[in-house]
This record gives sequence, structure tokens and C-alpha cells, in this order.
Amino acid sequence: MRLLLDPQLNPATDSGWRRRWFDIIYRHDTPSSRNFDLLLIGLILASVLVIMGDSVPRFHARWSGWLYGLEWIFTVLFTIEYGLRLAVVRRPWRYALSSWGLIDLLSILPTYLSLLIPGSQSLLVVRVLRMLRLFRILKLTQYVEEGGMLVGALWRSRRKIFVFISAVLTVVVIFGALMYVVEGPEHGFTSIPTGMYWAIVTMATVGFGDIAPATPLGRFIASVLILIGYSVIAVPTGIYTAELASSLREASHERGHLDRRGCPQCGLEGHDPEALFCRNCGHHLPTPMG
Amino acid sequence: MRLLLDPQLNPATDSGWRRRWFDIIYRHDTPSSRNFDLLLIGLILASVLVIMGDSVPRFHARWSGWLYGLEWIFTVLFTIEYGLRLAVVRRPWRYALSSWGLIDLLSILPTYLSLLIPGSQSLLVVRVLRMLRLFRILKLTQYVEEGGMLVGALWRSRRKIFVFISAVLTVVVIFGALMYVVEGPEHGFTSIPTGMYWAIVTMATVGFGDIAPATPLGRFIASVLILIGYSVIAVPTGIYTAELASSLREASHERGHLDRRGCPQCGLEGHDPEALFCRNCGHHLPTPMG
Amino acid sequence: MRLLLDPQLNPATDSGWRRRWFDIIYRHDTPSSRNFDLLLIGLILASVLVIMGDSVPRFHARWSGWLYGLEWIFTVLFTIEYGLRLAVVRRPWRYALSSWGLIDLLSILPTYLSLLIPGSQSLLVVRVLRMLRLFRILKLTQYVEEGGMLVGALWRSRRKIFVFISAVLTVVVIFGALMYVVEGPEHGFTSIPTGMYWAIVTMATVGFGDIAPATPLGRFIASVLILIGYSVIAVPTGIYTAELASSLREASHERGHLDRRGCPQCGLEGHDPEALFCRNCGHHLPTPMG
Amino acid sequence: MRLLLDPQLNPATDSGWRRRWFDIIYRHDTPSSRNFDLLLIGLILASVLVIMGDSVPRFHARWSGWLYGLEWIFTVLFTIEYGLRLAVVRRPWRYALSSWGLIDLLSILPTYLSLLIPGSQSLLVVRVLRMLRLFRILKLTQYVEEGGMLVGALWRSRRKIFVFISAVLTVVVIFGALMYVVEGPEHGFTSIPTGMYWAIVTMATVGFGDIAPATPLGRFIASVLILIGYSVIAVPTGIYTAELASSLREASHERGHLDRRGCPQCGLEGHDPEALFCRNCGHHLPTPMG
Repeated sequence: MRLLLDPQLNPATDSGWRRRWFDIIYRHDTPSSRNFDLLLIGLILASVLVIMGDSVPRFHARWSGWLYGLEWIFTVLFTIEYGLRLAVVRRPWRYALSSWGLIDLLSILPTYLSLLIPGSQSLLVVRVLRMLRLFRILKLTQYVEEGGMLVGALWRSRRKIFVFISAVLTVVVIFGALMYVVEGPEHGFTSIPTGMYWAIVTMATVGFGDIAPATPLGRFIASVLILIGYSVIAVPTGIYTAELASSLREASHERGHLDRRGCPQCGLEGHDPEALFCRNCGHHLPTPMG
Repeated sequence: MRLLLDPQLNPATDSGWRRRWFDIIYRHDTPSSRNFDLLLIGLILASVLVIMGDSVPRFHARWSGWLYGLEWIFTVLFTIEYGLRLAVVRRPWRYALSSWGLIDLLSILPTYLSLLIPGSQSLLVVRVLRMLRLFRILKLTQYVEEGGMLVGALWRSRRKIFVFISAVLTVVVIFGALMYVVEGPEHGFTSIPTGMYWAIVTMATVGFGDIAPATPLGRFIASVLILIGYSVIAVPTGIYTAELASSLREASHERGHLDRRGCPQCGLEGHDPEALFCRNCGHHLPTPMG
Repeated sequence: MRLLLDPQLNPATDSGWRRRWFDIIYRHDTPSSRNFDLLLIGLILASVLVIMGDSVPRFHARWSGWLYGLEWIFTVLFTIEYGLRLAVVRRPWRYALSSWGLIDLLSILPTYLSLLIPGSQSLLVVRVLRMLRLFRILKLTQYVEEGGMLVGALWRSRRKIFVFISAVLTVVVIFGALMYVVEGPEHGFTSIPTGMYWAIVTMATVGFGDIAPATPLGRFIASVLILIGYSVIAVPTGIYTAELASSLREASHERGHLDRRGCPQCGLEGHDPEALFCRNCGHHLPTPMG
Repeated sequence: MRLLLDPQLNPATDSGWRRRWFDIIYRHDTPSSRNFDLLLIGLILASVLVIMGDSVPRFHARWSGWLYGLEWIFTVLFTIEYGLRLAVVRRPWRYALSSWGLIDLLSILPTYLSLLIPGSQSLLVVRVLRMLRLFRILKLTQYVEEGGMLVGALWRSRRKIFVFISAVLTVVVIFGALMYVVEGPEHGFTSIPTGMYWAIVTMATVGFGDIAPATPLGRFIASVLILIGYSVIAVPTGIYTAELASSLREASHERGHLDRRGCPQCGLEGHDPEALFCRNCGHHLPTPMG
């Protein structure tokens, strides 16, 4: 969850324009900050669409100039926004070095770099990084309880998932090497890493078919690998579902035991709804809900 | 669920032929309305089969005339049915503008439009829309408790699924652009949108193979994307299963705790509905529900 | 479950060779009947392997005669077994018309039919049907409690699965027709049924790639279909898991409440393990387990 | 679980260098044994990377000599390690014949064998076996409780998974033969085993597309098989999830009911471990665990 949160930020001053802009940029519960968020999301989406459009040969040929201009406009706007973000917080460096600050910087730098290094190839790489900007939209999820619960359950099952992925990768190495030996370069298995790529593609039931076994033995090994994958695909689902179901159960358990009676003698709370006497001092409890 | 229901409809009159037809068309619990429903489903299925058959070159070449005739017969029958539906309700416009009314209209309009606009391409589009008629068959599910429970659990987890799809799309944009840069047009990744199409196909473990990475770096990135997809495929399943299991548990919990009597002597609750004496202190219990 | 069970069978006589053979063939708990079962499974597996081997061109070319001979030996053995099965039960017709009796018949008939109709094509179809013999091995599962629980949970969720499959097929019809219109015959979508085949292959995340969208609009529609499939693949898993978890819970609930105390006064059993007094007559119960 | 554990090993002596090395090699809780484990894992990973690199034509052409040398260095190091493992345990044969001992042997033998049998093909097979060395890294999982729980749930559901795989294989045999008859060699279904390979690839939703149905009937049968696979993919997930959820529930149940005190006055059990007085009658409870 921490990745999706802004660092602990404080406004640079207690009043004045910086305080006002701090509220607009970093808070999300006033009308003006809401409008700012919506405008920002709109601009990010538009700039991503421009980058996408520029990559389509047909559009690039026709509107190359317009797209280039729009790109610079977006970059300037995001630069101003970045400057404002730094100007209105008490500790600018803390923000600049946070994950969100770095993403903000990475989403404007590439356009400026493209002036110094005119190589078209590197330019393209740069455009891609700007897309990470999209992650900022996800900041909204921190307000949606649902999103938090999903990420929470994923986070709590991270060690189980790591053990699972390690086991999968071990199987992948062995089957990748086996297929390299059995099928060989003439059927597309040109090296062990290629065989591992094929094994991952197969075990995860993606199955591109760009590389496929052609010998009877290779097909038999592939079938075994598929059946292994078919049987263990249950594991991540099982881990996650059990974890999520347990969260839901605990949540409903907490709701179900909202007995708010305090003991009149010792003050202890959190009694069983059916309890008649305080479990700590033995004093008679008031009737529930009465 | 609301999408699958007819709007709150009332018969146009309290008696007469319109009342009788209202009962036949809109109710589903009398023998004549049952027969009407079955006939309608049969006609819809037959008309869909005719459209499908007409699209197969072999059948089109041989029975083109027959299929064209059948199509018009079905259209006329459905037009009469549409007219009847409007005639027998108190507020025809309310029905006409409901989702089911619009689907009814869309399933007859295209054939008439094909007379005015003879372009074969547009004609085909029109035929497809008539297939939405099939959804009406699903109206039957509203009576099957099972269907209701399935849709209910899906509906309650809609926000979680939306958050999940957003996260998936973010990953898709980044990996689509990455692959466009790494693999480039010569390996089929002709633009960022094409790369995104590939990323969706790969992450959802479909893997057509029409576009596949060919460079070592591209294959490594593809493997990472596949492992991400393999780990998160658990999420929608986990969401839905936990939600459905919680519905089932609540349903059985409600059945199990229908007895709300407290023991007059020791206060214990949660007695068996058939119990006559308190299981804790042996005191006579009050009569259930009395 | 009923499909996997023999019909309610009784031996033809109470003693003699028919009674002995009835016990050997239809019971599974004596040493001789165990040996018979193992021998039968061995023969079925061997005959299936012979059929498979005969279909491999390399083996067919070399050992065509041997394989043909073996096939006839297996057929004669299974014919004798079929005759015995009919001879030792009280109502032979009842067995002959049961699902297992029909499978037994179908697994020997084709070889005899191949004498009358020498067409090689039809012969092959015949060989395939004999493989249904394999299902008989599954009879063993009826003794494995695990197998019964799996089939039971599948059976109880059959209506939910039917509703789900209907919804999937509706989506398949609409997207199949859409792709036929959008992509057309030049990209492999030669008819609406072909489009439906593609939609099933795509939605179930199989993705052969023999037919794949090539236009931007087609790829966008395919992406939407994949995301729909990705979201609803959770549904059958959710249905089945919730059903199975509920079976397991009920089973452990029953085990957990094995309180075997009978009331000394009225004799009622099935008390709560914590109960001190009979819930029916208020008499003091004996101490549990003491 | 037993597969992942070392056999019950005892040190060869109670003191001296062998005792010290036993602690370093077989224990995992002292600083020096930790360092040994980390060094070993590093060496195994490095040697696997060398084997992989050697299989890539580009690297093989350039650094063939270096890679060959490194391979021998790793083999000598692992041979010394193998000798030490045998020297410091009380019963060397017991270790040598355990699964880990065999894997240790198999991971050094191939390099020596390559001196006697210079055939390049067999050499390659040999290299692959050395990769099983990777499994030893998994020994670490026995300390991670998470890994143990995953394997435990998989182990407890092994019989259900076996029944499921048997049912899947039966369907695979029948559909493989059906497709062989319907599509025939001209569409890639050259034999029944090939058809079975296709059926496994299809049913597990891998879908390479190297073999794909081309006739309408074949496509219909493929669609049926896919829908069967789509419906039953829920089964292994359901089995595993239900089993894992039940483990988690039992674990939390055990934690929650560690208090076995009964109230001396009213007999109520299930008190909070911190409770001093009965929640039902207010009587003083005995001290927990006393």
C-alpha cells in the first residue's frame, strides 16, 4: 500500500497562496482539489493518447506536427505542475525522492532529453516511460476501500506467492532444458533460455504457438508440463481466495460482535453479546441493547 | 439485475382482449403464457439459426431465396409481437424506452432498413444486432434462484472488479509500449495500440500467437508479463468466490438462527427451535414464536 | 452420481456357478473379484493402447497384422465378458439397457460391424467408440469418497453452471457475428459459426491463433471479449469452490457434533456438546465423555 | 513433504572436524552454516547460468573455452561437497540413497561421463540433469511455514487431484480419437496420440495452434471440448482452495479455543483465556491452565 501513498507531507506555510495550492494539489476532499484531480487525470489520459497515436504509422504520417506540438504543451503543463508540487511542501526533497516524485520527474524529463539526443530510437524509449504517469490515477484507489482490501490480501499472501513462483521457475528451468535437448534448434528451441520462455508460455496456459514441439517425445513432455500447470494453477487462486475470504470473515466477525456494553464496576468493554456477567470482575452487566 | 427485468408494467384495462393478451405476453405462470414464451424462444432460436446459415457461403449459394423469405416471415411475426406488447400496457412509451423495449425494436428495424439502404455491408451489421434478441431468453433466469445469486454476487463485487480491470489496463499500457520499443514493427508490434492488444492477449493467457516476441529481451519481458498475469488471475476468482461463499454462509446462517428465545432463568440464547427446556440450566423455555 | 453406478442388480440364483460369477463380476470386495477387476482394467488399457498404436502410421506399416489380431482377441474376450454379465443377473435386459450395459455393447460391436462394412473411414469411427470402455475404470471411483464428493459438488452446482454456460453462449453468438462483420472472410472469419468458434476459443483463453483479428477495430473487439472472459472465468470456479467448501464445512460440522449422549429420561440424542440439560424434557444429562 | 527433507541424519562423531563440518553442512541455524548455504546456492545458480549460457549459440561461439573451464571448476567443487556430506554423517549409505543424495550424485556424474562418451547429444542430456541441483535450494522452504502449508494442502488433496486428472485423461483419449477420425492427417491430426496431445493442449486452454481444426464438424467438437475444459477448470481450484481455507480455519479455530475451563457453577465452557469470572453466571473461574 505504501507505494501508492504520498509521503507524509506538510504545507510550506500555514496561510497564503502556497497553502491554498497545497490544499488544491495534495488534498482530495474540497471542490477545487476535486476539479484539479479531474483536470490532471484528463490531461494524463490525453497525453497518453497522443503518444499512442504518434506510434500508429497512419496518424504519424498525417498529423506528425500537431502531435509533436501537443506533446510539448503537455510537457510544459506537467513541468509547471511539478514545480508547484515542490514549491508548496515544507520539505521539497522528501517529495522529490518519493516514488511519486520520481514518477512525476520521469514523466517530463524525456521530452527535454529528446532535444539533446536526437536519436529516434532513444526518443521512443523515453515516450514509454512517460506512461508511468498513469499510475498516479491509481492514487484514487486509496480512497476506495475495495482497492485497499484487494492489495492487502495480495500483500499478506506475498510470501506464499513467492514460494509458488520459485517452484514454478524451477520446473521451468528443468523443462526448458529438457525440451532444448529433445526438440533441438531445428524445431525452434535454439537455446535453454528459449526453452524456458516456451515453458513459461506453456505452463501459464498462454501458448503462443510461435515455438511448439514437433517430435512425439517432445509432445509427451509438453503434455506432462501442461498437466502440471493445470494442477498447480489452483495454487495462487487458492492462496488468494483463502486470504480474502478470511479478511471478509474477520470483518463480518468484528461487525457481529459490536457489543458496546461497558462493565458498570470495572469499565471493561468487548463482552460477548450473550454474556450476563463481566468476565473480569464478575459484576452483573446491563441487558444488551436495553 | 434491473437490466434483466421488465419495467413495472400494468395492463391497459382490467378486462377484455388486451387484458388477456397482457397476461399471455407479460406473465409467465399460466399455461397459455408458458406456451407463448416457449413459442417465442423457438422463433428467436430459429431466426438466429437462419441468420447464421445465411452467413455460411455454401448455404447462402444454395438456399439464398428461402433464407431471405424466412427472414421476412420472422421479422413480420416479431413486428406483430412488438405491436401487441405496446398495445396491451397502460404506458406504452415506458415499455418502448426500457432496455427490453429497445432490444425488441432493434431486432426488427434492421430488416426494414435493408429495403432503403441496399448496401450489403450495412445489411450485415443489421443482422447482427437482431441477435441481441437472444438476451430475452435470459429473462427466464430471473425465476431461477441460482441465476439471481450468480448475478447478485457479480454485482456486489463490481467495484472490486473495476479496480482490478483498471490495474490490469495500466500494466497493459506500459507493457504494450515497452514491447513496441523493444520488438518494433519488424516483429509485428506496429504501434503502441497493437502492443496493448498483444499484452491483453498475453496477460489473459489467450496467446493467439499472431504476434509473438522474437528477440531475447522481448521474450524476457513477455515472460515477466505472463508471470504477472499468472499471479493476478487469482484476484477476480478470489473476489467472486469469497463474495459467493459469504452469500451462501449468510443464507445458511439465517436458516440456522431462526430461534430468538432467551432462557427466562439463565438468559442463554441460540436454542434449537424444537427445544422445550434450556440446555444449560434445565428451565422450561417459552413456546417458540409465542 | 447415478451414471457411474451399476443398476440395482440381483444375482440370477442364490447358489451355483452363476452366483459365484456374479460375485466375481459385480462385487468388488473379495480377492477373486478384485483380481477380475484388475485383469479387466489391464485388458481395457492394453486394447486402447493397441488402437492408439494402430493409428500411428509408423507402427501401422510395421505391425499391421499383429495389431489386427490383438484387436480381435480383445474383442472376443470382451464379448465373453459381456455374455457372462448378462447370464448371471436376474434381469438381463435391465442391465443391457443401463448406461454401463450400453457402453459394454458399444465397445464390442464395432469390430463385428467392420466385417460387414469394409469402408476404412467408418471402421475408424468404430474404433473410437470402443474407447468409451475406459469409463468403466471410473467405476472404481465410487469407492473413493473423494471422487464422490467431487462429482457431488459438480452435480449440486449443475443448474448454476448451466445458467453460466447459457450466458457465455449468448456472448459468443453476438461477438462471433460482430467479428464476422468487422473482420470478414479475408481474415479467416468465413461465417458466423466460424466467428462463434473463434469467440469460444478466445473467451475460454485457449487462443489457437488459426484465426486472429487483423484490423484495429477487430483487435479492439477481441480485447473487450478477452477482458469479459477474464472477468467471468471466476464464475464457474466461484460456484464450484463455494459448493465444495460448504460440503467440507457440513462434513466437519457433523463430525464436531458427534455428541452421543442419550437423555436418561426421554432418550433423545443429538445434544449440543455443551448442553447440561435435555432440551426436550429438561432432565440433567450425563457429563460428556465421562 | 518428506521428499523435501533430509533423512534422519546423525553426525559421525560427537566432536572433531567432522562434527564441525556436519554442523556447517546439515544445520541451518548457525552463522557459519548460513554462510555455507548462501555460498552453495550462489554456486548452483552460477553453474546453472553457465550451462544456460553455453546453450546460446552466440555465447558458445565466443566463450566456449571459458564456459567449459567453469563447468569443470563447479563440478570439482560439488564433488568435494558430496564427499564431505558422505564423510561427516554416521550412515553414509543412508544419505547416498536418499532422494537428496541421489540428486547430489546426479549433479556431478554427467561431467565425468562426458569424458568417456564424447557424443555431443548425450553430453547435452547430461547437462540438463545437473539442473535438478536447483531443487536443493527449495530445502529452505521447509523453514518457511508458508511453503509447508502450501505443500501440505496439495498433499492432502492428492487423491482428489488424481481422480480429477484421470477423468481429464479419459476425456482426452475420447476427444483425441474423435478428432483423429473427423479431421484426419491432412489437418495435422496424424495419429490418436497426436490427437490426444492436441486435446490436452486445448482442454488446459494452452492452445498452441500448431494443430487446429479446419472442418466445421471438427471446430464444433473443439468448441464442446473447450466448454468442458472451461467448466471443469474450476475443479482443481475448488479442491485446493477448499482444502487451504479449511487449514486456515482450523489453525485460527485452535488459537481461539485454547481455553478449556468449565464454569464450576453453571458448567459453561469456551471462556476468553483472560476471563476471571463466568460470563453467564458470574461465578469465579479457576485459574487458566491450573
